[in-house]
Amino acid sequence: MRIGFVGLGRMGEGIARNLLKAGHDVLVWNRSADKADTLVADGATRAATPAEAARAEVIHTMLADDHAVAAVTFGPDGILSADPGIIHVSHSTISVKLAEGLTQAHRDHGGGFVSAPVFGRPAAAADAKLFIVAGGGAEALAKVRPLLDAIGQRTFEIGAEPSQANLVKLSGNFMIMSVIESLAEAMALAQRGGVDKATLLEVLTGTLFGAPIYNTYGGLLIGGEFRPAGFVAPLGLKDMNLVAEAAGTSGVPMPLLSLVRDRLTATIQREGADIDWSGIAKVVWADAGL
Amino acid sequence: MRIGFVGLGRMGEGIARNLLKAGHDVLVWNRSADKADTLVADGATRAATPAEAARAEVIHTMLADDHAVAAVTFGPDGILSADPGIIHVSHSTISVKLAEGLTQAHRDHGGGFVSAPVFGRPAAAADAKLFIVAGGGAEALAKVRPLLDAIGQRTFEIGAEPSQANLVKLSGNFMIMSVIESLAEAMALAQRGGVDKATLLEVLTGTLFGAPIYNTYGGLLIGGEFRPAGFVAPLGLKDMNLVAEAAGTSGVPMPLLSLVRDRLTATIQREGADIDWSGIAKVVWADAGL
Amino acid sequence: MRIGFVGLGRMGEGIARNLLKAGHDVLVWNRSADKADTLVADGATRAATPAEAARAEVIHTMLADDHAVAAVTFGPDGILSADPGIIHVSHSTISVKLAEGLTQAHRDHGGGFVSAPVFGRPAAAADAKLFIVAGGGAEALAKVRPLLDAIGQRTFEIGAEPSQANLVKLSGNFMIMSVIESLAEAMALAQRGGVDKATLLEVLTGTLFGAPIYNTYGGLLIGGEFRPAGFVAPLGLKDMNLVAEAAGTSGVPMPLLSLVRDRLTATIQREGADIDWSGIAKVVWADAGL
Amino acid sequence: MRIGFVGLGRMGEGIARNLLKAGHDVLVWNRSADKADTLVADGATRAATPAEAARAEVIHTMLADDHAVAAVTFGPDGILSADPGIIHVSHSTISVKLAEGLTQAHRDHGGGFVSAPVFGRPAAAADAKLFIVAGGGAEALAKVRPLLDAIGQRTFEIGAEPSQANLVKLSGNFMIMSVIESLAEAMALAQRGGVDKATLLEVLTGTLFGAPIYNTYGGLLIGGEFRPAGFVAPLGLKDMNLVAEAAGTSGVPMPLLSLVRDRLTATIQREGADIDWSGIAKVVWADAGL
Repeated sequence: MRIGFVGLGRMGEGIARNLLKAGHDVLVWNRSADKADTLVADGATRAATPAEAARAEVIHTMLADDHAVAAVTFGPDGILSADPGIIHVSHSTISVKLAEGLTQAHRDHGGGFVSAPVFGRPAAAADAKLFIVAGGGAEALAKVRPLLDAIGQRTFEIGAEPSQANLVKLSGNFMIMSVIESLAEAMALAQRGGVDKATLLEVLTGTLFGAPIYNTYGGLLIGGEFRPAGFVAPLGLKDMNLVAEAAGTSGVPMPLLSLVRDRLTATIQREGADIDWSGIAKVVWADAGL
Repeated sequence: MRIGFVGLGRMGEGIARNLLKAGHDVLVWNRSADKADTLVADGATRAATPAEAARAEVIHTMLADDHAVAAVTFGPDGILSADPGIIHVSHSTISVKLAEGLTQAHRDHGGGFVSAPVFGRPAAAADAKLFIVAGGGAEALAKVRPLLDAIGQRTFEIGAEPSQANLVKLSGNFMIMSVIESLAEAMALAQRGGVDKATLLEVLTGTLFGAPIYNTYGGLLIGGEFRPAGFVAPLGLKDMNLVAEAAGTSGVPMPLLSLVRDRLTATIQREGADIDWSGIAKVVWADAGL
Repeated sequence: MRIGFVGLGRMGEGIARNLLKAGHDVLVWNRSADKADTLVADGATRAATPAEAARAEVIHTMLADDHAVAAVTFGPDGILSADPGIIHVSHSTISVKLAEGLTQAHRDHGGGFVSAPVFGRPAAAADAKLFIVAGGGAEALAKVRPLLDAIGQRTFEIGAEPSQANLVKLSGNFMIMSVIESLAEAMALAQRGGVDKATLLEVLTGTLFGAPIYNTYGGLLIGGEFRPAGFVAPLGLKDMNLVAEAAGTSGVPMPLLSLVRDRLTATIQREGADIDWSGIAKVVWADAGL
Repeated sequence: MRIGFVGLGRMGEGIARNLLKAGHDVLVWNRSADKADTLVADGATRAATPAEAARAEVIHTMLADDHAVAAVTFGPDGILSADPGIIHVSHSTISVKLAEGLTQAHRDHGGGFVSAPVFGRPAAAADAKLFIVAGGGAEALAKVRPLLDAIGQRTFEIGAEPSQANLVKLSGNFMIMSVIESLAEAMALAQRGGVDKATLLEVLTGTLFGAPIYNTYGGLLIGGEFRPAGFVAPLGLKDMNLVAEAAGTSGVPMPLLSLVRDRLTATIQREGADIDWSGIAKVVWADAGL
């Protein structure tokens, strides 16, 4: 299939390469053009604009935030200035509101929109081990399903409303932050009481908490190395703000969300914007005299 | 081995029976004597007092709270009024402070104290599937280890200080409450946005959150049946208060703990004292108009 | 002076009448035209559009939210479609961001912008007893100062940046919500301990807390009548959201703000959107079993 | 009247001297005996033990915490080992539970107990400007009322149950912490937005917040000098813990209390135990990058 791909950061590059490996023709575009070099060397075609990348059946985007997705879609030389009929697959963690806007805009443009945010860090993207949460119309979903299968280990189809995939993804990120906060507090308590953090984690993951999320973030917290960041705190805060926006729209009080938002804000102030979002633990521990 | 067992509630009865099955002589005592009937029918010996149950090499206790454990240990006809030298294995979720007191008292009495709180509900106790967190001196631990192996699926030895096992157990219960709160908030957000709670849970457990704790409590929240309780909210609040006591002693701020304590308190006021501790979800949802 | 006035709700009507009483020519406009009838009977002139009301030296606006202020300013037949040079005095509680936008727009239009939000309920507006917080350029402020003096008991000049007046006003509303939350919690504690709420309030206001804010809201809480609302909870929540937006922009964690936002959200869900913002006390008390 | 006085710290010495000035015979005792020297020089009589100080009609105590009050009352050579019939007037901020215990103990001893905690700092004690909240039986209250009038500017009689005076006092201290937290957050927001803290405070106290509490603590926050402490953070935390204990007993969720407790704990860890309780503002500001 002829596919466009916009956004070649650490996540996007891995995804695009897996599409290439699966035998598709991939048109790539990135704001900093040199990011496309290795993919072009591997067989991708360089596009001069997002609109040029959209001369395809399907276009994927993997970008940092609402602003970037809106720019490559609605902006000059954007996706919507290309010929009608394309299906846009968005992997970014964007707001429910923007997902709704994109759904409408692509419908008006005679094409389709599939929201397909992912769980996984860059290594998982490179290894086609992402988890994908996909929302969109049945026809569009059926068409892009093989593409999703080529880049992830499992796809969860959420339903016909693309924005609901974003809501699930945002909920998941909130759950991750909740795990980090709870682990950080429990580790502070344990350590001040003479129990090693690693011992606590071993008991937790060996009993009821034996999930990747506890292994991954528990390990990060025990290592205590929060730089270089896998996912910087300001992006984590951006996501929590998107959760809060959705919660505000629906009238849902989420005090635990409020807690982690305030925590992330303080962490950025006290530790700098380059720290990993799991670095909230440093602030939890400093507040405990550790 | 000749073993005493004090406290035959839903957890204790299952544990005691597994000790019996393992071939030990078990002396049983319970405040309401009739709770001992079926165990006696199965081969246990009825003791008239805790002190009588303590005419053994090892005595296990499994009781509701600090008060009950202190009463059967220090009270008239209590364990410490029996001959010196016994090893006391305490399975209850008690305070760090009481565990320290029991350690000292048994040392003074010429015996030993092993703190061995458990993770697991009554069914796990009956099936010898408990997880056990054990703290105590090396010699005492070595002696009781076969007994622990007879009642659980895995034992984590924490170290020489019995109270540290309690700290780990309390930390674990705090982690469980944190999971419930985070799940309840995320489910409220999802449902108000049109995503089924079960769909959200499926994505979570199918990706990064595939641990027993999410399966168990996620299932309880989706079922929405919080009565009869597996673990009543007031006992959950008691445990959170013990965590807070330990945190206060160590000077550890735990805002997420504060949140779940206030939540449990409000839940008991609004829903009654017979609700399961996972019933905090009802209050989370009512606050979201669900 | 020839003055326009847009927005004749309960606050706006009182303010406009005081300008009329002070001897000014007042052009009035309101979305629902009949709200202007009594003012016209008293000597005001009816304008057909905001632009027509802006055929004056100064135009005041007193509207519900950012959306309404933006509409009458930037919209068709809005203030900025009138002749250049007017000074816009905004009394509404709007966002810092919109205040910045209005400052720029009026500068570009050859006029001036004074942000002059007020503290006080409708009765204070009618009696010219408002407190006014005013920000704007020195020249513009000097020109409108007599108008502000005609409608309030005291004006605080904050400085040259209009949006800072809004920041102060928003901070004040946050302080009010904090007082309500703290009073509601303390009254719950007192009452459950057998102390009458009124007794507690008497001690507070008779010692260190003898300020109008405690008298006014303390009285409301003791009365327990939260309907009809003086200021409905959704408007309170709107303001707290504006505070949060400003805090987010500046990177300021405000956990007490988070608490009152979640509280207002829950209150609206549980009690309905017509309750006064002090009605959060009902929810505080219900959570305490009162 | 012949009066005993126990506890000659910064508060107690001022109170005792005012009783002396009012013409009473005052027997003084302090753990560090030299603290009594100046009072003895001024006419007081030195007692060798609390019991000796209790050879009087009324005995006042002004001590740091529950532990100290219990020690001088129930301990060897304590107040209750003196002849029966004395009235004990306790000015300390103690727990509701201890106040109940003292009430019962003095009743059993044939005397009376009046709980009379005070609002005010050392200067107010020296100037007889304290506010006093008094609870106790009518007869006992009538007898000690002239003594209270000699040491304060106003006495609030709460009722027959002494512990209720403590509940009101604790509620008041919670209200003070709430004011400090709200002021600190609002000042952070203002300052990051370019508004001077002093300007914000001027608007607040000039409008709805014109009470001593805002003037006093607002001034402390603007000064930014949190050492030497007027009231050290650990004592503030002790009081918040007593509020929490009372709230726990009554089943009252108090999330704002939870917030200030966690805040005080973090402040002590980050700033040291010698900081004033208003020093939580330093932590609020550091979290905001100030």
